[in-house]
Amino acid sequence: MPELRKDPIVGRWVIISTERGKRPSDFGRTVTPPRGGFCPFCPGNESRTPPEVYAERLNGTKPDGPGWRVRVVSNKFPALEIEGDLNRRGEGIYDKMSGVGAHEVVIETTHHEREMSQLAIPQLDRVFTACRQRMTDLAQDRRFRYIQVFKNHGEAAGASLEHSHTQLVATPIIPRRVAEELKGCAQHFEIKERCIFCDIVDQELAYEKRVVCANDDYLVIEPFAPRFPFETWLLPRRHERDFEDAFRDGYGSLARIYKELLLRMNAALSDPPYNWVLHTAPYEAEKKGTVHYHWHIELMPRLTKVAGFEWGTGFYINPTPPEDATRYLREAVLPAGWAEGEDEVPADSGPTTSG
Amino acid sequence: MPELRKDPIVGRWVIISTERGKRPSDFGRTVTPPRGGFCPFCPGNESRTPPEVYAERLNGTKPDGPGWRVRVVSNKFPALEIEGDLNRRGEGIYDKMSGVGAHEVVIETTHHEREMSQLAIPQLDRVFTACRQRMTDLAQDRRFRYIQVFKNHGEAAGASLEHSHTQLVATPIIPRRVAEELKGCAQHFEIKERCIFCDIVDQELAYEKRVVCANDDYLVIEPFAPRFPFETWLLPRRHERDFEDAFRDGYGSLARIYKELLLRMNAALSDPPYNWVLHTAPYEAEKKGTVHYHWHIELMPRLTKVAGFEWGTGFYINPTPPEDATRYLREAVLPAGWAEGEDEVPADSGPTTSG
Repeated sequence: MPELRKDPIVGRWVIISTERGKRPSDFGRTVTPPRGGFCPFCPGNESRTPPEVYAERLNGTKPDGPGWRVRVVSNKFPALEIEGDLNRRGEGIYDKMSGVGAHEVVIETTHHEREMSQLAIPQLDRVFTACRQRMTDLAQDRRFRYIQVFKNHGEAAGASLEHSHTQLVATPIIPRRVAEELKGCAQHFEIKERCIFCDIVDQELAYEKRVVCANDDYLVIEPFAPRFPFETWLLPRRHERDFEDAFRDGYGSLARIYKELLLRMNAALSDPPYNWVLHTAPYEAEKKGTVHYHWHIELMPRLTKVAGFEWGTGFYINPTPPEDATRYLREAVLPAGWAEGEDEVPADSGPTTSG
Repeated sequence: MPELRKDPIVGRWVIISTERGKRPSDFGRTVTPPRGGFCPFCPGNESRTPPEVYAERLNGTKPDGPGWRVRVVSNKFPALEIEGDLNRRGEGIYDKMSGVGAHEVVIETTHHEREMSQLAIPQLDRVFTACRQRMTDLAQDRRFRYIQVFKNHGEAAGASLEHSHTQLVATPIIPRRVAEELKGCAQHFEIKERCIFCDIVDQELAYEKRVVCANDDYLVIEPFAPRFPFETWLLPRRHERDFEDAFRDGYGSLARIYKELLLRMNAALSDPPYNWVLHTAPYEAEKKGTVHYHWHIELMPRLTKVAGFEWGTGFYINPTPPEDATRYLREAVLPAGWAEGEDEVPADSGPTTSG
């Protein structure tokens, strides 16, 4: 069982893998399997993953067999484990608890070679819908206080499998970064009686120079004070506390602008590795205090290295002004017919060749 | 002039380089010059750096010429600029100020090929003494509130020049990470009337399993809740608020244990890239409130990638328990006669070959 341990000075929790602890010789090896190797996420290989917890399937097909378009399974090497109690305890001046949580993988497509930006808009809608379904389900578990949805794309961004996937981790604490945002939102509301993200949406729409693209429902901006070059935020234009509330017969509008954003990023930066994270309001009891939160996606291409100055200070040096980044993203030329694209056909038979 | 901008939600300042903004095509290029290329830090090339602001030199030698053993110069491409006023101003709901600060480089040795762990103990003492001298001098400038000393070793840790060097950045704000530690120290003192770092030193000495090495003055531990595998802290055993106070006819005792730590790390992990950062009490007015702070060095080998989960949550997954890391570092075999080593001879003549 992994352990959650709290730094006694700054109160930061970390997850310590106590069971399969890495030895010095384990570091520095490339973990990404070579192209063309065996892929547990490809159709036909369903038995090689943990059992599925959700799938969008053809009628009549059975779990853990072919016939799916999106499939969610537990992570085979989870950061946190689903069984057990939190068992909060001390160790002298230190605090720890058991590493209880959920860690799941959303397999975004049956096509091994398609990356997220290449998925059809209806398929991206299915991916977001699968995330929502798992978030809603995991929220029933009273041990969990937050669910972090994120994606690592490319080896430099920490991806260890090539087949496109998004991850969910349910944690027994509200993560620091989310808690800081909740606090900032509450402080702003106390002074202004407005949501700070709504104020940002208004100011950015008026200023224009940091607006990458927009539709009726969503706005994509380069934030005023980005940590990383080309860090990009995607926000609902109207006040919306959590991602689950954004579901209206699906996530079609989100899927469309999200695809546009990925294509602009790929065109401007030649397919960079990236991470994206979803920030949404925490669960249950906490929800009452979070009415002023405003969910959003943060996308961070990995272009620069975080070094000693940043680790020492938490103060980031960004070599590209967001106004410049906006211009490059706006000027990016999108492929003709980008919004059309072939929709996913459920894989309905045995093993296909991966890679 | 770079710009400091504040994230309106979480209050995090970032440095935006507005003048030499990087274009999309600038990313992904290797910036480390090849071995054997021209090195501005090698003796004989003094005119190729900005003028020196400090040097430990042979009597009679002139600034910006040969004859030095340690040399400090301004960074040719500074993150912050020394001239100008802070000029705090708003932009609608946002806050910004001019990127005023100092950015200096401590050239640690005349030998291009020697890395920090290979420097003789008296030479490491000179490096720490040079840092102290610059910190004391920069502290006179009332625009600055903190000086971050740090080192990036190896390309994966963000080093852009091969010749061994440490950096100092004076900032017009107290960085977030330091402010968090100051707050934690103050909270602990309020409850316990003790320094939390002193409590950590006591508990770790009693528990032993996270103690890597120690001498009369310093303790090296793997912290209880490390963010990264093999993250290591070096602390003074007695309460000492700031690094400058640790100077007693030099930093001989620190230099010795620091060298031991680097050698153990190199032996256990096969010369990993790493960052180290110095955390010390802030300057002047702030000092009154920081009597309970306890300076220390944090050393972080770069073995794993920070990915979406960490960026989204601020919650780190560490695959190596600190108790295991301690065992590997303790069992590391140090080179015979490691504490002896040839001391630096001042470079007293013209250009030497670099690389």
